Amino acid sequence: MQAIIEYLKQNKARFVEDLCDYVRFPSVSAQPQHRSDLHACAAWLVKHCRQIGLNARLCPTQGHPIVVAKTPAPRKRAGRVPHFVVYGHYDVQPPEPIDLWISPPFEPRVKGRSLFGRGASDNKGQNLAHLKAVQAYLKTGTPLPCDITFVIEGEEEVGSSSLARFLRAHRNELNCDAVVISDTGMPTPKHPALTYALRGIAAFELTLRGPAHDLHSGIFGGTVDNPAMALSQMLGKLRDNNGRVAIPGFYDDVQRLSAYERKQFKRLPFDERDYRKFLGVPKLFGERGHTPIEQRSARPTLEINGLTSGYQGEGNKTIVPAWARAKITTRLVPNQNPAKIIKSVRQHLKKLCPPTVRMELKTGHGAKPYIVSPTSLQAQAALRALKSAFGCEPVLIREGGSIPIVNDFKKILRAESLMLGLALPDDNAHSPNEKFNLDNFAKGQLMSACLWQELSRC
Amino acid sequence: MQAIIEYLKQNKARFVEDLCDYVRFPSVSAQPQHRSDLHACAAWLVKHCRQIGLNARLCPTQGHPIVVAKTPAPRKRAGRVPHFVVYGHYDVQPPEPIDLWISPPFEPRVKGRSLFGRGASDNKGQNLAHLKAVQAYLKTGTPLPCDITFVIEGEEEVGSSSLARFLRAHRNELNCDAVVISDTGMPTPKHPALTYALRGIAAFELTLRGPAHDLHSGIFGGTVDNPAMALSQMLGKLRDNNGRVAIPGFYDDVQRLSAYERKQFKRLPFDERDYRKFLGVPKLFGERGHTPIEQRSARPTLEINGLTSGYQGEGNKTIVPAWARAKITTRLVPNQNPAKIIKSVRQHLKKLCPPTVRMELKTGHGAKPYIVSPTSLQAQAALRALKSAFGCEPVLIREGGSIPIVNDFKKILRAESLMLGLALPDDNAHSPNEKFNLDNFAKGQLMSACLWQELSRC
Repeated sequence: MQAIIEYLKQNKARFVEDLCDYVRFPSVSAQPQHRSDLHACAAWLVKHCRQIGLNARLCPTQGHPIVVAKTPAPRKRAGRVPHFVVYGHYDVQPPEPIDLWISPPFEPRVKGRSLFGRGASDNKGQNLAHLKAVQAYLKTGTPLPCDITFVIEGEEEVGSSSLARFLRAHRNELNCDAVVISDTGMPTPKHPALTYALRGIAAFELTLRGPAHDLHSGIFGGTVDNPAMALSQMLGKLRDNNGRVAIPGFYDDVQRLSAYERKQFKRLPFDERDYRKFLGVPKLFGERGHTPIEQRSARPTLEINGLTSGYQGEGNKTIVPAWARAKITTRLVPNQNPAKIIKSVRQHLKKLCPPTVRMELKTGHGAKPYIVSPTSLQAQAALRALKSAFGCEPVLIREGGSIPIVNDFKKILRAESLMLGLALPDDNAHSPNEKFNLDNFAKGQLMSACLWQELSRC
Repeated sequence: MQAIIEYLKQNKARFVEDLCDYVRFPSVSAQPQHRSDLHACAAWLVKHCRQIGLNARLCPTQGHPIVVAKTPAPRKRAGRVPHFVVYGHYDVQPPEPIDLWISPPFEPRVKGRSLFGRGASDNKGQNLAHLKAVQAYLKTGTPLPCDITFVIEGEEEVGSSSLARFLRAHRNELNCDAVVISDTGMPTPKHPALTYALRGIAAFELTLRGPAHDLHSGIFGGTVDNPAMALSQMLGKLRDNNGRVAIPGFYDDVQRLSAYERKQFKRLPFDERDYRKFLGVPKLFGERGHTPIEQRSARPTLEINGLTSGYQGEGNKTIVPAWARAKITTRLVPNQNPAKIIKSVRQHLKKLCPPTVRMELKTGHGAKPYIVSPTSLQAQAALRALKSAFGCEPVLIREGGSIPIVNDFKKILRAESLMLGLALPDDNAHSPNEKFNLDNFAKGQLMSACLWQELSRC
């Protein structure tokens, strides 16, 4: 490892230059006018991978191309070696609103310890760190203990619509022991993190219809149910006073936090007062018996995302509205099943709905929650790699959001994902002035270099 | 009366011509481009009143002018005679959408037994019927048993904003025994009606604010209250399972229906199945223990008029919305007081509001409910006039809507209002193809002629 550490140190400035070259491509997948920029970025990436010593190719898709780069097979090798896939994406979020940027989004600039530019942390800096670690192995002639295949796509910010098809078509080639993803976050520079679980989701649109048209509340009010009132009463019954979702069976499959997990969560930096002030709420509120960290990552929720009914303008309009609608999402945790939850929610809403209105329920596609055991050999190996590189004890975190592709990796490649994010909370992902901490860039390279050693020993 | 009846009969066709002249003015008070049309209509009305034999004048206001026309004082009169004010309005609703009219809105046409045109029933046809009755007295030399002052304004459809000031300025001149208004409705041609009560109103806008901005429901959901959920739970508690408003003290001042009123209501034509189908609801719903007719006119209600929160577009947006808002109105009945109700609602909402959100409550101006005793001498006199003119037993009705000006008449002139509406439910007031039944026009003239005799005897 000494040669690798030395190589990474000596090439530090050059690697920042490489990252600048990468960030300079306005590879905005959501904007059609950037189609050729995405292609140019992918082509640059293939060329860069080849210069590093990887066998790289551009794989066309119905959308933007996917870059595949593999470590070369050594001449002679004893027995089977492990194979890992590193997933990343070269597409970026739109930079708008441009006038809020302190420097142009696609003219990367180093200020202090950070590189500013759209895509610097999400995700170019993070996937480049892994490429640089492999470059160090290859350029110093250090034997890699495993095969590595990089899969870097160009549609992550627009829903990864080509990825599942690509994984299915290349199932054999991508057959692997684990998928490594650096596209999540770490709480502070002193808290490198393994994200071992994600919440799933199930979405609903509930509409109650009453009278055929909005009615004059003076002439007719009092003789018909008000769909907005019926909706309020139904919605109000979906959460109890303890902040728990009041739908029969909702918690049946929730995996309880282990003592180990709870202990790990206690190590996370968290100041309730700061958090409350940051959110701007008068008081925090969540499921009784759980800490905010547990509530937002390891506990399921039901949220009303939107309400629409009747008159919404200035002043008053004296009507009984014809209909009322709520957008609802449930966040699910292991081992809740979206299909089962959708069924329970539908059944319960039907039961709650009074005969005075007609109910319509649309359900969006669900995403399963995800978990890889934090005590598994691979997870523990990842934690050791984090500790070696960052020089401090890593933390284990669950993230409250959903990353649907990890379910694809599991379903199609039958591989677990290890999420080792290098982004800091103030990196402004998806916002103006996105940046990437260059210490994290360097430590990320080292972490990746250690990771292949640790993972290959599992 | 025979001379009057004869005069009205002989001039029937001419009076319809007069109504056509009146309807031809596009006196749309809501549309600034019709300002001169309103003035022209008012000037025509003054001229017409003078031709009838009234002392008429145009009174300018800050808005559209008010026409005042008085019966001439006879040379010699023994003692005090009663004085009545007839209120009406010459302004009309906008005719849009024009393409839904079967004939142009300001080109009045007789089809079948109705005259089609904007303003035909609301309110030109109704106030002209009273003018024609007085014309019959004056032209036949029949002595009027009372003095009559017509007050016909041009701002009724835009809130009668100049009327209260005008009433205050002319309090002495308009000092009267009662105000007669034909601007309400009758259930069927065989059910002439005295509207003896109106509901009042109090309006609210309730906003709950949670986080400073919409939050990502994955990252933060579970740790903060959802304002849309808090709102649903608060609103849901404002109505109980019996359809009653669940606000302490809400019913305290509600005047119970007398046996006489209940008996009168039972005489009203009402088919529950037809009514349900007309509204398009799967089932009627209202306060238990009351008939639909009572529920919509003699019982107070609380209606949600609108709901707004978070995301309202297609599909889903996974947020905890920063705020949620409800528009609410309560319809009030005698003797509820809007100010007292506003206070009770505010107190109760404060009590229901959880500490996890911030509550804002805006209150709109309230309008008091109105009632004139249906057994009063004047009300009974009005019923006799209806019966004479229509040849069938009149009905007593309460209307569920509010007509704020009756409170002004009561407060400023200290006079009760007798509402003797000539409009039929299918007259399309405020809608395309407004029409006025010409039988009701003729019977309305006769009713007015009888009314002065009956009222003057009280």
